[in-house]
Amino acid sequence: MNKILLSAKPVVNKIKHSVSEQVRSFIEKYSRRPKLSVILVGCDPASIIYTGKKGEAAIAVGIEHETISLPENTSPKDVKSVLQRLNSDPLVDGILIQRPLPKGFPEKDVVFLVSPEKDVDAFHPLNIGKFTLGLPGLKPCTPAGIMELLNFYNILPESKIVTIIGRSSIVGKPMAAMFLQANATIIQCHSKTSNLRELSKQADILVVAAGKAGLIDSSYIKSNAVVVDVGIHKTNEGKIIGDVLFDDVIEKVSAITPVPGGVGPMTIAMLLQNTLFAANNREEPSRLCKSQF
Amino acid sequence: MNKILLSAKPVVNKIKHSVSEQVRSFIEKYSRRPKLSVILVGCDPASIIYTGKKGEAAIAVGIEHETISLPENTSPKDVKSVLQRLNSDPLVDGILIQRPLPKGFPEKDVVFLVSPEKDVDAFHPLNIGKFTLGLPGLKPCTPAGIMELLNFYNILPESKIVTIIGRSSIVGKPMAAMFLQANATIIQCHSKTSNLRELSKQADILVVAAGKAGLIDSSYIKSNAVVVDVGIHKTNEGKIIGDVLFDDVIEKVSAITPVPGGVGPMTIAMLLQNTLFAANNREEPSRLCKSQF
Repeated sequence: MNKILLSAKPVVNKIKHSVSEQVRSFIEKYSRRPKLSVILVGCDPASIIYTGKKGEAAIAVGIEHETISLPENTSPKDVKSVLQRLNSDPLVDGILIQRPLPKGFPEKDVVFLVSPEKDVDAFHPLNIGKFTLGLPGLKPCTPAGIMELLNFYNILPESKIVTIIGRSSIVGKPMAAMFLQANATIIQCHSKTSNLRELSKQADILVVAAGKAGLIDSSYIKSNAVVVDVGIHKTNEGKIIGDVLFDDVIEKVSAITPVPGGVGPMTIAMLLQNTLFAANNREEPSRLCKSQF
Repeated sequence: MNKILLSAKPVVNKIKHSVSEQVRSFIEKYSRRPKLSVILVGCDPASIIYTGKKGEAAIAVGIEHETISLPENTSPKDVKSVLQRLNSDPLVDGILIQRPLPKGFPEKDVVFLVSPEKDVDAFHPLNIGKFTLGLPGLKPCTPAGIMELLNFYNILPESKIVTIIGRSSIVGKPMAAMFLQANATIIQCHSKTSNLRELSKQADILVVAAGKAGLIDSSYIKSNAVVVDVGIHKTNEGKIIGDVLFDDVIEKVSAITPVPGGVGPMTIAMLLQNTLFAANNREEPSRLCKSQF
């Protein structure tokens, strides 16, 4: 059986192409570019790289971009006042706060202050509620990217068992909501799950977002399962690996995402799509997306 | 082994007692009663009975209550204008639209118009997002009632496998979110699930909200499982039954909710609790419940 490597590259190219074209129409129609503002607090090296990548990707599709870099010791109050300015700036369409925030920073005090209509990470309860109900709106980038990736490779979740390892607000929970929407049967596991291997092994599609390098070996995988690896870790030797032991499971799976080059680039592509969605929605609110909420 | 009948009665009494006392303090403090307004469209006999029960329960704990009965052919526009009046009435704390609405009535056009702070059914996306994130706020009555019921009988979901059959916005989805919050491992099944029996049989706690009379017999049940039956149906002989064949499964379970007398009364008790929560929150918004959202 042929293994499918679920590479993000062709999907990302397709999305970027489509977003570029839509950005062009947007500019023609509204005489301005959609704009994404990223707040970066502190100087975590990985965050600086990710923020840079987001900026490059935005510019490449014609989306205006700024990174507002704040020092490590910035107070929540100062982050709030930056957010207030961005929320009320009519030319800013998308706002995101790069995570992780510095150790001890009260994340919850600021993250929910992003205006829901500009909340391109879809962290705000209103946006979470909307996609949970299947209503149109901004969707969390990583799980939305995984749905696009599987769709591109014709992997259909309907009536499949999808096991999700992880229950974060950013991946695990919204991932379950999206697969449920797609008529999959959901098994959701996490650090308190007592029989992870057994539940994981039932999956037709296994999504691993545990944040633990190499957690999943072939004993967790059903033959011909599709494996989506959300993890990203750097080994002491500088190699980038995921939550799944790729070399160990590859013989067993029917399809698997590479790390890097799988879920990561999809997340950035969805951020572009969300920024464009927010921009269009702000200029011309559809009935469901704005007037009701 | 002793079977536990998860009767709502002692739990409801306890909740009503507690709500009554809190209502008394509320009245002393704010010189008014908390108030619940129910909108009833049409004359579905079951809805009339349920609405009546809600009213009685409210009055019994000192909550003011009104049912606004509208004729079967009321237009969405007219329901909207009633909602606008109730949303802006400072003396109304809780609003609910009794469901089902008449056949063909565009439910989504009105149900999301209830102000989130008065939304005692917790249907609004903002409320759904809040409890999904584990933030304080209004919670859907039926799943919240089930959590209270299990807690009363010392059934702890942590690290247990909870299979939920059903994925409605009113029961199945919020039920999964609440059990996840309580550190259970979740299996969520529905009409498109292809191996329901097998997944159901893995459950330490099985919640059946399928809306199909007698769907679940003993072959779906693991020995000593806890069974929560959300279904309520009337047979041709006038008997009230659930989604679970009680007599068939009773030998196998360790605990089970009766129908009637299990989940149903809990739902009403939680409605009282939500109305009180909304009233207190409106008078004295806590930081998390109002100022942020």
